Amino acid sequence: MPTSSARSSSGCPTEPGRLASGEEGTTALILVTNDDGITSPGLHALSAELKRLGRVIVVAPEAERSAVGHAITTTIPLRIQEFRRGDEVVGFATSGTPADCVKIAVRALLEVPPDLVVSGINRGSNLGTNVIYSGTVSAATEARILGIPSLAISLDADADADWSYAAVVGRRLAAQVLERGLPPGVLLNVNVPNLPAGRVRGFRITRQGSSRFTEEFVAREDPRHQPYYWLTGSYEVNDDDPETDGWAVANGYVSVTPISFDLTAHAARAELAGWDLDD
Amino acid sequence: MPTSSARSSSGCPTEPGRLASGEEGTTALILVTNDDGITSPGLHALSAELKRLGRVIVVAPEAERSAVGHAITTTIPLRIQEFRRGDEVVGFATSGTPADCVKIAVRALLEVPPDLVVSGINRGSNLGTNVIYSGTVSAATEARILGIPSLAISLDADADADWSYAAVVGRRLAAQVLERGLPPGVLLNVNVPNLPAGRVRGFRITRQGSSRFTEEFVAREDPRHQPYYWLTGSYEVNDDDPETDGWAVANGYVSVTPISFDLTAHAARAELAGWDLDD
Repeated sequence: MPTSSARSSSGCPTEPGRLASGEEGTTALILVTNDDGITSPGLHALSAELKRLGRVIVVAPEAERSAVGHAITTTIPLRIQEFRRGDEVVGFATSGTPADCVKIAVRALLEVPPDLVVSGINRGSNLGTNVIYSGTVSAATEARILGIPSLAISLDADADADWSYAAVVGRRLAAQVLERGLPPGVLLNVNVPNLPAGRVRGFRITRQGSSRFTEEFVAREDPRHQPYYWLTGSYEVNDDDPETDGWAVANGYVSVTPISFDLTAHAARAELAGWDLDD
Repeated sequence: MPTSSARSSSGCPTEPGRLASGEEGTTALILVTNDDGITSPGLHALSAELKRLGRVIVVAPEAERSAVGHAITTTIPLRIQEFRRGDEVVGFATSGTPADCVKIAVRALLEVPPDLVVSGINRGSNLGTNVIYSGTVSAATEARILGIPSLAISLDADADADWSYAAVVGRRLAAQVLERGLPPGVLLNVNVPNLPAGRVRGFRITRQGSSRFTEEFVAREDPRHQPYYWLTGSYEVNDDDPETDGWAVANGYVSVTPISFDLTAHAARAELAGWDLDD
């Protein structure tokens, strides 16, 4: 009954006395989002597993929002639609980005903040430098900015995939986060290799590596003879260090990278102190 | 003559023998971009100052792209238009995001990679947690991912502003970066207080603080009685630590923060190693 923890779409509480967390005392409220859109099978596999841990509400983009990074919507208004699967109210589809979904869920749709935000399961890995383009990760980052423990989970699969093992991984990590919490300002970026459960070699706590897309642009001409460009490219795993996320997934491990949104290059501060900047 | 370093809009070199950097040996090629759009006065003030250091080419969004974070455009093609100011070819306006602009400039429009990418001058600061939403910063980040030294520069002004001092700051920092380089994977996030030159107290090498927007959503109803939501909020300076970017700008200093795109929370890795994750 996820709607009992949600306000109506007018922004007013539907049932002000029924707060999801308060009602059952110890039941965790888990917000699930993604960047592949609310109909994505990865999101549904994850939600089904997370229901074993608590009450799940989904607030996700109405359609794919891949590679939006940490975009938020400020110049146009957001639209929200209740989203059902058969008779069940799954949650809300929004016209916004993954970060928007978390913001509006926490600030306007939910009566109480969720205990945990889980973003995914993304179709395709979010490893190395690609993490900064990831809408999946940005949704979890937004939650952590708002003070809510969070994790992002991605499956290293391009096309149709078996989500079941990754969903179990998501549930297991979610249980740990609910039980142990996370250090302030830290969230988890989880990547699961596309292997049957029995062939996954275990978990590795990794650092963000330097794998990335090598891009090129394909130039074409439209029927009016105007040029246009498609971004294309191929994914390069550059990481031969077993400490990295890219190595872990390429070698059959689930990669768990603790990440933060403090971008400061602390080691570089001393070097810059010697620069000639003043008049 | 920035076009001499540019390919034609069909993706083919216009004058294959005339490469900007090669032609004059030591002349620096500087790519300027932003997220306020190619007609922004901040971009033009910056470009004018940077011309004292080398050859400047502008590749910027055709209109405002604020708060797009590190979004890139993958599901629709990009459009490019030559952009002139009077007789002068300034560069190219694109239909993409700031990160797209840097990618397509380096991968398709320029014959040789620029020696430096400068993004700005943004109207409004990019401080604390807000850095992760910033299109201005993401353009500089994209450059650094591509191996090109870069800096982002923002002026702490809401409306019409005097860009002249901030442009001088941008030129002075650009000169230092061209002369000294930057550590691998490190770029600069520069924020200038909105003060007359004589009242700025100097430069501080800072860390990213925790100032941020406190958001709320304003719910309205459209003429068809459907709800919609505007994101709004106010900027909160939470930083009383003089090491932070927010403190520096609030206290009349130019803030220079070295940042990176390695999001790993290295200190948290040991803690996670004790979690119960394996079957």
